Amino acid sequence: MIVNMKDGASEQQIEHIIERVREAGYQAHVTRGTERTIIAAVGSGGRRHELEALQAAPGVDTVVPIAQPFKLVSRQTRPQGTVVTVGDVRLGGHKVVIIAGPCSVESREQMLATAHAVKASGATMLRGGAYKPRTSPYDFQGLGVEALEILREAREQTGLPVVTEVMGSEDVDLISEHADMLQVGARNMQNFNLLRRLARCNRPILLKRGPSATVKEWLLAAEYLLSGGNSDVVLCERGIKTFETELRNTMDLAAIALAKELSHLPVIADPSHGTGRRSLIAPVSRAAIALGADGIIVEVHPCPERALSDGAQSLDLDGFEAMMRCLSDPMRPTASPERSPGKYAPRSAAAPAAGSYNLHGFSF
Amino acid sequence: MIVNMKDGASEQQIEHIIERVREAGYQAHVTRGTERTIIAAVGSGGRRHELEALQAAPGVDTVVPIAQPFKLVSRQTRPQGTVVTVGDVRLGGHKVVIIAGPCSVESREQMLATAHAVKASGATMLRGGAYKPRTSPYDFQGLGVEALEILREAREQTGLPVVTEVMGSEDVDLISEHADMLQVGARNMQNFNLLRRLARCNRPILLKRGPSATVKEWLLAAEYLLSGGNSDVVLCERGIKTFETELRNTMDLAAIALAKELSHLPVIADPSHGTGRRSLIAPVSRAAIALGADGIIVEVHPCPERALSDGAQSLDLDGFEAMMRCLSDPMRPTASPERSPGKYAPRSAAAPAAGSYNLHGFSF
Repeated sequence: MIVNMKDGASEQQIEHIIERVREAGYQAHVTRGTERTIIAAVGSGGRRHELEALQAAPGVDTVVPIAQPFKLVSRQTRPQGTVVTVGDVRLGGHKVVIIAGPCSVESREQMLATAHAVKASGATMLRGGAYKPRTSPYDFQGLGVEALEILREAREQTGLPVVTEVMGSEDVDLISEHADMLQVGARNMQNFNLLRRLARCNRPILLKRGPSATVKEWLLAAEYLLSGGNSDVVLCERGIKTFETELRNTMDLAAIALAKELSHLPVIADPSHGTGRRSLIAPVSRAAIALGADGIIVEVHPCPERALSDGAQSLDLDGFEAMMRCLSDPMRPTASPERSPGKYAPRSAAAPAAGSYNLHGFSF
Repeated sequence: MIVNMKDGASEQQIEHIIERVREAGYQAHVTRGTERTIIAAVGSGGRRHELEALQAAPGVDTVVPIAQPFKLVSRQTRPQGTVVTVGDVRLGGHKVVIIAGPCSVESREQMLATAHAVKASGATMLRGGAYKPRTSPYDFQGLGVEALEILREAREQTGLPVVTEVMGSEDVDLISEHADMLQVGARNMQNFNLLRRLARCNRPILLKRGPSATVKEWLLAAEYLLSGGNSDVVLCERGIKTFETELRNTMDLAAIALAKELSHLPVIADPSHGTGRRSLIAPVSRAAIALGADGIIVEVHPCPERALSDGAQSLDLDGFEAMMRCLSDPMRPTASPERSPGKYAPRSAAAPAAGSYNLHGFSF
């Protein structure tokens, strides 16, 4: 921390701060400028909050942190990055992991049909909500334990590990028995009691970024899990609230690269919630991968127009299969409009010419 | 527009609205439900603002638009997309256009050195500020006409077309003489007098998105240009203001795909202003291209630490060359941390293993 004294702070005020910095367990390095004095608190074993409180001391202008407030999640502690293993799936390794499934488990038939179809298209993990945090109390709240049993069956039939959301501490044991990975939803990112409880469970955690959480707050939420004993944590960017309302959220894609720069934890992207718009899911997924995302979690439903939740942003089974082809083929156009081969040239909007939309390894 | 009447609106109120819809130049299609009545205004030749004003009429709950408010910029009017030609560069065509140069033209030597270097690395257009919209009146405001002459010389020496910002109507003629494309800066996106003036100039326009403008507002600003007679307009996403302050702005990357879905105009990305962080420029550029961006505009300075503006987000000449290699090579890692080959495996953070970071055409 740097304590930045006000212009004309008295010698007595400066001495007081030096003394308080030492009391807090740091060395005080003083720099006297022509108008201002700054006091750097040096060392790592001190009590940071005592330095922060100096903001209120006489003669102090500002107290400025010089180190990040998170430690265990920092990339400095593990520069090579972390791989989190869920069943036989490795998040943070060589391969981009695709997690697919319905927003909510609605029935055995719906979940099993989706599970087999997404596996056939190349997904390596399943998602499905059993306990649903819905904005309105009148909306479908999930099938609960019945859904957990269906998810277990889906895993047994397909061999794909399952991630599902846990809404409160009281559900952790039950969900841990049925699922391979527990998701903390965006609204619960700063449910600190839940985070402390999950730090003591034996399952890896998928930690979604809160809709109004900064990247630092997100990493500090992860720090709760690591500092409490659970280091198998995967971060998930799912869009933030901004003034723009054209899409469901504003996908903060650059935050994926930033989180990977600041932290060693794997980071995945949720383009379904991040955009709320089916046509953007494939292009936003490609962008997330370009930014270094370790995986994509995507909502897929056999019949989105009948979905009990998130139908508008769910891909159908064919849509998911098309997205997977688009992600694995560097030449395939995404769902966004293809480019024109020339000004006003007549061209079908539906059938992009081969090679007309070279997204990757493109030419200048 | 749909006029949605309140529960229990009287027959007299409904008749009044029907009459007013007809007066505004539309047909009124009435649907009477069990509790509510809705009146659809059908047709295209009417006076839209008269419908909007019905929000204030007795018995009306809401007036909801059913069509987009922009017409000429809409993709519906030109599904094949538009190519804007600047010199011999085509924006919106097959190739991704890379526009590079310093934030501000600071000297002849600085601009010419940058111009030759970025051309050698593959840039196809030059940028450079002559008139600078700086937040503080004490910051460097640009060299003005001297910079325009330097830009002209840079174009003559390299053959690369030049884009530079125009801050007010009074500068349009002068800048049009020297530059190939005129930029409307983010802060001027809704300077309607300037937009009306630029609609009558003979240069293509680069229209940056305002930091608090929605995608619709951005497209309506472009509509000013097209409706005033200038259809050579390129949109540029450069980040929006959000609660997140870790980066200079929040790059709304999904808005690139959305703008291309809604409009036929070319869209480029400005990762320099969008992130303000040098390490994110290459990965965010790749992401923008994955989302369908037609070009990238990037700040490059021979010595960023001596730059008079935007040094922290400028690439140096080697950094730009590295970015260009990264963009054109599907296997090259970006500046973001490379992936670990295995949990806790010892590995140099500086030297990514070949093939360990397959961004494109990746494997699952």
